[in-house]
Parts: sequence; structure tokens; C-alpha cells
Amino acid sequence: MTTLDSDESAESYFGTQLPPPTLDQDIAGVRSFVHRQRGLNRKVVLVTSGGTTVPLELNVVRFLDNFSAGTRGATSAEYFLKAGYAVIFMHRQFSLQPFSRHYSHSTNPFLDFLEIEPNPDKSSAPPNITVTRSERDGLLDVLTAYKSVQQSGLLHTLTFVNVNEYLWLLRAVSQELSVLGRSVLYYLAAAVSDFFLPRQKMSEHKIQSGKGSLLIEMDQVPKILKPMIDEWSPDGFVVSFKLETDPALLVPKSRAALERYGHHLVIGNDLHRRKHEVVFVSREHQGTAARDVGINWLRISGDAVNARGHPKEIEEDIVAELTKRHQAWIEGPRS
Amino acid sequence: MTTLDSDESAESYFGTQLPPPTLDQDIAGVRSFVHRQRGLNRKVVLVTSGGTTVPLELNVVRFLDNFSAGTRGATSAEYFLKAGYAVIFMHRQFSLQPFSRHYSHSTNPFLDFLEIEPNPDKSSAPPNITVTRSERDGLLDVLTAYKSVQQSGLLHTLTFVNVNEYLWLLRAVSQELSVLGRSVLYYLAAAVSDFFLPRQKMSEHKIQSGKGSLLIEMDQVPKILKPMIDEWSPDGFVVSFKLETDPALLVPKSRAALERYGHHLVIGNDLHRRKHEVVFVSREHQGTAARDVGINWLRISGDAVNARGHPKEIEEDIVAELTKRHQAWIEGPRS
Repeated sequence: MTTLDSDESAESYFGTQLPPPTLDQDIAGVRSFVHRQRGLNRKVVLVTSGGTTVPLELNVVRFLDNFSAGTRGATSAEYFLKAGYAVIFMHRQFSLQPFSRHYSHSTNPFLDFLEIEPNPDKSSAPPNITVTRSERDGLLDVLTAYKSVQQSGLLHTLTFVNVNEYLWLLRAVSQELSVLGRSVLYYLAAAVSDFFLPRQKMSEHKIQSGKGSLLIEMDQVPKILKPMIDEWSPDGFVVSFKLETDPALLVPKSRAALERYGHHLVIGNDLHRRKHEVVFVSREHQGTAARDVGINWLRISGDAVNARGHPKEIEEDIVAELTKRHQAWIEGPRS
Repeated sequence: MTTLDSDESAESYFGTQLPPPTLDQDIAGVRSFVHRQRGLNRKVVLVTSGGTTVPLELNVVRFLDNFSAGTRGATSAEYFLKAGYAVIFMHRQFSLQPFSRHYSHSTNPFLDFLEIEPNPDKSSAPPNITVTRSERDGLLDVLTAYKSVQQSGLLHTLTFVNVNEYLWLLRAVSQELSVLGRSVLYYLAAAVSDFFLPRQKMSEHKIQSGKGSLLIEMDQVPKILKPMIDEWSPDGFVVSFKLETDPALLVPKSRAALERYGHHLVIGNDLHRRKHEVVFVSREHQGTAARDVGINWLRISGDAVNARGHPKEIEEDIVAELTKRHQAWIEGPRS
């Protein structure tokens, strides 16, 4: 594996790649959601979540993907809702979602805790289906929160699969959100591919294996944070994530991202320790030089994470800290 | 994208790539399942389902994947159970599973059809959770079938993620199943990568994007059907699948696979028409030359597929046809 030299700007990306067919419809939905929240003077967070694919064929059979179940995004979205935010949850199709995430098909299949209850009066009426007693309390909390969010209309969901859909959506949504000024928080937890295969280089049909090995050469995805912060939504509070597997790279890479884009905060996390610890890398003071960077570790104990009954989720503390920092930004001096 | 020349045999694959750590445990589970079914003189089908990943890093962040939700495998497994087979369902983690497939998180989220029912006597007892009336009948059928299968122990589930896990599992499971002789049916519906990246070529940590494009060179996955049919389970009835996006290639590629491996049947399907039509490509008579190939199309109407209430699934007809062919093979002349 090697990387070659190339330069891709966001402008040239959107000038050469096609928008997804559902974009206009998605924008209309976001616009009316934003309008409603603005009328209520409510803070809004955009949570992006899950990995993006890079299709290798136009009739896509094979694709490159990024590892992400969507746990960070789905969990955080719940805590943002609890904290009073309206949430736009922009996620990879079939990745975890707030509330339903507690019941994955594999580790906690919901069919296992449903019971068929014959009708008590033995009439010809069909039997009831109820939730097993042992699961009831846990599910009741989740279900109550879910129904309350549904009713209040505080959660708006958007779906992407490939990196092209993600990029077009992110641009459009941040442009829509910009009317909220400082009241909008960007929580960019999706695992976005650094590379893509331009339409122009894709083969139409499934790549035939024939004899031998496969060679793929991809282009670099444009650094979308740059125009987002400079042009599309300059007043928003922007939090990006950095995932690394080499602990030695975590802080340097997070710091480099912060310096490069000049946004508010990078949350660094190591693949193997991401449920126990993250690091907040931020500018100490608005407008200060890059060397005045704050490094704050946020840790919870392994015991708390694995506690039976009520396990602690690190996203609770992440969101609590962000809520404070966002509020300080809203109330802070205007430049 | 180009393909280079290389030759990878199954033998050299298993000689150089490491088995997954859970393999011994998985084999033990399969062995006891097979032993039980053998005692009951029951036919067994191995259904493989979902796509395989090709990790690009040892600490995997990025991977190549094959498009597959696992619909074909999960749906067929239900019909095999209905037909009296014991089923080993070997599937990609988080791909669709029999029964729960009817309630995906995205298109039919189960939280939407649960209702909180306050306790009727207004005591301090917690409320009940029940299934909405409108969903009850549909769920009752699924749940009844699910519980009956759980109780009878006719479904054994195995999980893989990457192509290496798939290959080691398939070898081990088919070796275990070989004791069943002709009573075993292989229904290989998983979308298996044609390429892989040998451990020896992987980078340890996340590939750094730096500046420029990504170049990946992969090796060819060994043609596993060959040793499976020749050595590991020579008496089983083997059905493989061929997915194409170019309709002109469907029959020729299916026929080529049949001629190459000499197994019983290739089911060809076109990516865009796979819910309406498939083609059975098989040798007309046991031991006849490759030119005596039977081409049988199996089609259902679009109306039937989209029928409200009780949509027809093509897997019902596929499994009915296979049950007949498998029985004929069991009763057929021994070579």
C-alpha cells in the first residue's frame, strides 16, 4: 500500500461528482426542522455517525469501508436529547441508532424477550404479545424516552451510505444550519473515508476476478472541514473526531487537525480504549496561537463501563462537557 | 483497476494465513449439532450468508467489503426450516438473520410497534409493554416460528466478519458435515471476496492518508469449492451462487463455475433482478459431459413480490426446487 501525490479541493470535488438523487428532498426536510427549532429558540446539534463506503463499481458490488458500528454517534445523540438539544442524526444506513441501539439483532435480539400470551378468557381473540418481565424495566426506560422524542419532534434522521452522499449531505445540512449562528453544534463522529474513487475511474460492472491480484488506485477525499468552517457555517461550534490505533499518534494528529482547520475542538480516541478514555484537544483561548493548545483527558473506569444493571457510558461525560463549552461559545465575545 | 497474475491454492492459503481464535470452539459447537441431527436422521443444510470483509490493516480501521444485506441467506434459511431441514446458518455479523430479518432497525423499527400499557388496577406495579394491535398478527406468525425453532434446536448460528474467518470456518464445517454423506446440502449464498490482503502485506496501524491517493494490491482468494468437493465433503449436494451485474455474463459465468468445480448446481442471479428471477445451471445427468448443461429459469411476477399483506418470496420456490433435487441425489445411484 502506498500513497501517491494529488491535490483535491472541495470545490473541484463538488464540481466533478454528482449529487445523490434524494438530496433536494433531504434538504427540504432539514429546512423545515431547522425552522421549527429556530422558532423555539432551541440549540441544535448535527451528529454524524457510522462509516462511509467507497464503491469500486457503478453497479456496486464491492466497496471500501471504514470500521464503525455507530456506537459513539448513536449514544451521544441520546445524551444530547437529554440535555435539551434538537438533534439531526445523520448516519450510515443500518448503523446503530439512538434508543434501538440497546437491542441489536445479534447481542440482544428483541424476539427473545417477547412472549405469546394466550387470551385469558379463551375466546377466539388472538393472543397478546408482551415483553418478558425480566426485560421490562430496562425496555420501559428506553421506550419512554423514545416515544417522548418522537412526540416532541426533536430528532431528525438522515441516511447516507457512500462517501459521496455523506459529503453532499454535510455541505447542504451545514448551509441550512448556518441560520442558527452560534446555537448550532457540529459533532462529526462519522468515520469518513480519506479516499474515494471518482465516477470517471469506476468500472461499470462487477470487476471480474480472472486470474491474479487486484490493484485499486484512489483519490483523496477533500478536507471538508475547511470550507465548512470558513464558508458554509462560520459561527457553529465544530467538534471533529480523530481515531487512531497507534497511541503515540493520537495527540499529535488531533493537534494537527485543530491547527489545520482552526475549529473548536478535536476529540481524539484510540481504537482499543475509546469506551474508557478520549482526549479533548482545543485552543485555550479564542484566536490564540496554535501553541496554546489545551489537552484534557476524559476517563472513566473499566469497572464503571462494565457495571451490570447501569453501565456508565463515556458519551454522557463527553456531552456534559460539550454542553458547557458550547454555552460558553454562545455567550462569549463576538469577534 | 487492473488484475495481475498470481496463483493461490487453498493449501498454500491455509499454510500461510492464521486461523481465527474462536475456530476450535465453533467446531465443537458444530460437531455436537451434527451429532444430534445424525441421531435423528435429519437432513442438514449449511447456509452461508452476507458479505466478507478484507481488512487492510492489522488493527483494522479500513476494509474492502462485498455488498450483501444477507436477504437471500436469511430468507432461505426460514424456508429450509419449514421444509424440515436442520440449518447451520453461517453469516456475516450484523447481516440479516432468519425471523428477525422481518424487523430491521431502519425500515420497520420494533420500538415503533411497542406500547406502554398502564397497569389496569392503578397499583404501583410497573406498566406492561405490549405489541400494537395492527402489528400483532404478522409478528405472531414470525414469533411462533422463531420460538418453535429455538425449542427444537434445529438452527445453529455461526458468525464471520472477514474472508479469512469465512474460509477457515467453511473448511472446518464441511469437514464436520461430511459424516452425513449425501444428507447434507451446501447452500453457499455468502458474497465472498475474490481478493484478500495477506497478513504479511498488511500495515500494522491505520494507513495514514497524508497527501495523495491510495494504492492497494491484493492477492486472489483460493477457489475453495475445489477442495471442498474433491476432499472435505465429497458426497454433499453443493449449490453455489453467481451474482453478476451484466446480464450477458450471467449464464456463461455460472456455466464456467459449474464446469470448473464439477459440483451440482450454480444459481445465477442478476443484482437488479434477484428478487424476481434466478437461473439454475446444472449438469443434466450425473457424470455427463459439460455440454449437457441444464438451464432452468425460475421467475415470479413483480406483482407477487410487491403484494401487500403476503408478498411472495422467490426463496420459497428456490428451496422447494432444491429439496426435490437434493432428495433425488440422496436416492440416486452411487458412483
